Amino acid sequence: MAIPLPDGLATPALVVDPDVLDRNVARMAEASRAQGFALRPHAKSHKCARIADRQLRSGARGLSVATIGEAEAFARAGVDDLFIAYPVWLDADKARRLRRLADDVALRVGVESVEGARRLGDALRGSDRAVEVLVEVDSGSRRTGVRPDAAGEVGKAAADEGLDVVGVFTFPGHGYGHDARARERAARDEERTLGEAAQGLRDIGLDVRVVSGGSTPTVGQWRPGAVNELRPGVYVFNDATQLAIGTCGVADLALAAVATVISVPAPERFVLDVGSKVLGSDRSPWVAGHGYLPRFPEGTVTGLWEHHAVVRLPEGVRGPRLGSSVAVVPNHICTPVNLADELLVVRDREVVDRWQVTARGTNT
Amino acid sequence: MAIPLPDGLATPALVVDPDVLDRNVARMAEASRAQGFALRPHAKSHKCARIADRQLRSGARGLSVATIGEAEAFARAGVDDLFIAYPVWLDADKARRLRRLADDVALRVGVESVEGARRLGDALRGSDRAVEVLVEVDSGSRRTGVRPDAAGEVGKAAADEGLDVVGVFTFPGHGYGHDARARERAARDEERTLGEAAQGLRDIGLDVRVVSGGSTPTVGQWRPGAVNELRPGVYVFNDATQLAIGTCGVADLALAAVATVISVPAPERFVLDVGSKVLGSDRSPWVAGHGYLPRFPEGTVTGLWEHHAVVRLPEGVRGPRLGSSVAVVPNHICTPVNLADELLVVRDREVVDRWQVTARGTNT
Repeated sequence: MAIPLPDGLATPALVVDPDVLDRNVARMAEASRAQGFALRPHAKSHKCARIADRQLRSGARGLSVATIGEAEAFARAGVDDLFIAYPVWLDADKARRLRRLADDVALRVGVESVEGARRLGDALRGSDRAVEVLVEVDSGSRRTGVRPDAAGEVGKAAADEGLDVVGVFTFPGHGYGHDARARERAARDEERTLGEAAQGLRDIGLDVRVVSGGSTPTVGQWRPGAVNELRPGVYVFNDATQLAIGTCGVADLALAAVATVISVPAPERFVLDVGSKVLGSDRSPWVAGHGYLPRFPEGTVTGLWEHHAVVRLPEGVRGPRLGSSVAVVPNHICTPVNLADELLVVRDREVVDRWQVTARGTNT
Repeated sequence: MAIPLPDGLATPALVVDPDVLDRNVARMAEASRAQGFALRPHAKSHKCARIADRQLRSGARGLSVATIGEAEAFARAGVDDLFIAYPVWLDADKARRLRRLADDVALRVGVESVEGARRLGDALRGSDRAVEVLVEVDSGSRRTGVRPDAAGEVGKAAADEGLDVVGVFTFPGHGYGHDARARERAARDEERTLGEAAQGLRDIGLDVRVVSGGSTPTVGQWRPGAVNELRPGVYVFNDATQLAIGTCGVADLALAAVATVISVPAPERFVLDVGSKVLGSDRSPWVAGHGYLPRFPEGTVTGLWEHHAVVRLPEGVRGPRLGSSVAVVPNHICTPVNLADELLVVRDREVVDRWQVTARGTNT
């Protein structure tokens, strides 16, 4: 995100550097090919059909999504292979929506409980829809997913419902951490728990074809053969958290919010017209403030309100003038994208395209 | 938010209890009348024309908004008196939008710098539009706003541009705090700084008609005569932060996210299908977790991901069953409303209405 900003942009706005984005997309595709993983990027990080298209053209097998709503949005946009990487709980309405989706696309869903598997079976009974099922395993995040030794039980419940159980998946959320060892440990946890869970499915006679893991931080950490599918999301844009934990460099940042300096109350302090309703307010323990400022890398966004970001500079660092434009790279890219209706694509100080955020708000 | 939830709601969804909402609206209107303040509620907290309508019918003078985009959305919805309570910085496009707004509604805007005042003057020069200007004062939040002794200089710059400078305003953001003394101190700061700033305007011969302050926490803390306009926002719904700092009770909570229990990994832990893309991730130092659970007041949302909320219960407290519905009151209501396209109005276990979030995403 070193591109010069266009003049006269109504701020705040999210801008994308398409060249950095394309490089990020190509690099991940190449790494997956080289290491023999199927790449199924998580679309919750961009929610844009235009970006999904770039990922699929560069070799991604399909997309991962988090909700039925996201799957519907991408199906409408023409994506025909979708994995709802989430333990969907089907009420009558969601069951109907899922059946309709399965008519239109190659569909995979996650389960992590016997009851969830039964509901899925009920929803699809009597239909000839070939929905693939993956059992979610907890590799250390401590949110959803069964313990690896319980994968067989859930897999059996799904298979007993006549569902096509094809493998296991996990999200190594504990791979976010300041030092590379946290990521390496998380990758080992993934390999071990996915391996145990896959064995549990094989033990009851299932053919395990998909062993799916990965997030942007654990990419490249796996031993050959342990995992055969990768679901990173953030890598398309990267963000201030990835920069802080060292999984990307400044040159790999592809998205920023452009803001205007609306106040300079003191030489070491200025205020931007961007806040949590554009940047989101996610803040992990690994970042110092509420975003990264490429033009002021020593600056810290010490205060974030809905429509204000207060930036502090070290003494002696010259700040921007009132009315000028300043870019802020968000802490966690998945949130701001979901707040925006469109991303402005900028090249050579010009807005050259506008990408609609196809799946904005489709979080149900 | 003690209402029984409807069955079969596609979750996550934001639901509103209209009776609690109406009571909150009426109570604030009554308090303002009794204390002689003009009430100009901040619409950034609800962004809904249907709620604005209730506020205006109950006696609010007009609305406050944060952006030109919000003003445009409410103007389209028929609101004819709007204060952009923000130091707007006008580029060519925003100047054009502001002029158009001023054609349609009684408009007020904030300024907090000499340069900002000049730009506003440039934007409106030669037009016969009567835009009112208020000088923003920093009463202790340390974001935007001039020191009270500088209000005269900014007011003079605006008056020299031929603008109609009618008063001063502030936001006492430092009034958020665990103990009532913080709120009382913030209210004293408001009175003192607004008073000094108003005097600064009078000293240069201006007629100060509006002295505007207030947020939900500092309501009711002012001494008679010090402030004559109130701009609270959150009070319509209240939220987990207001509950934690003691400015509302459980019975005053008018909005919650309804979620489904998708996982029960342990007796004292369960996971909901709601996360930061619905609840927002704001978290002040005064709240224990990522939301308040009316059915499990001793529970804490210890983990919040984009589509997961992990809840912990004290030992011995019986949790909900898999697949059941649980309501979560967000920490800070202004963020989730901006994430939603509509609010479901629920009475007697039925969705009786759907209120569009008129100004969702209009943050520029």
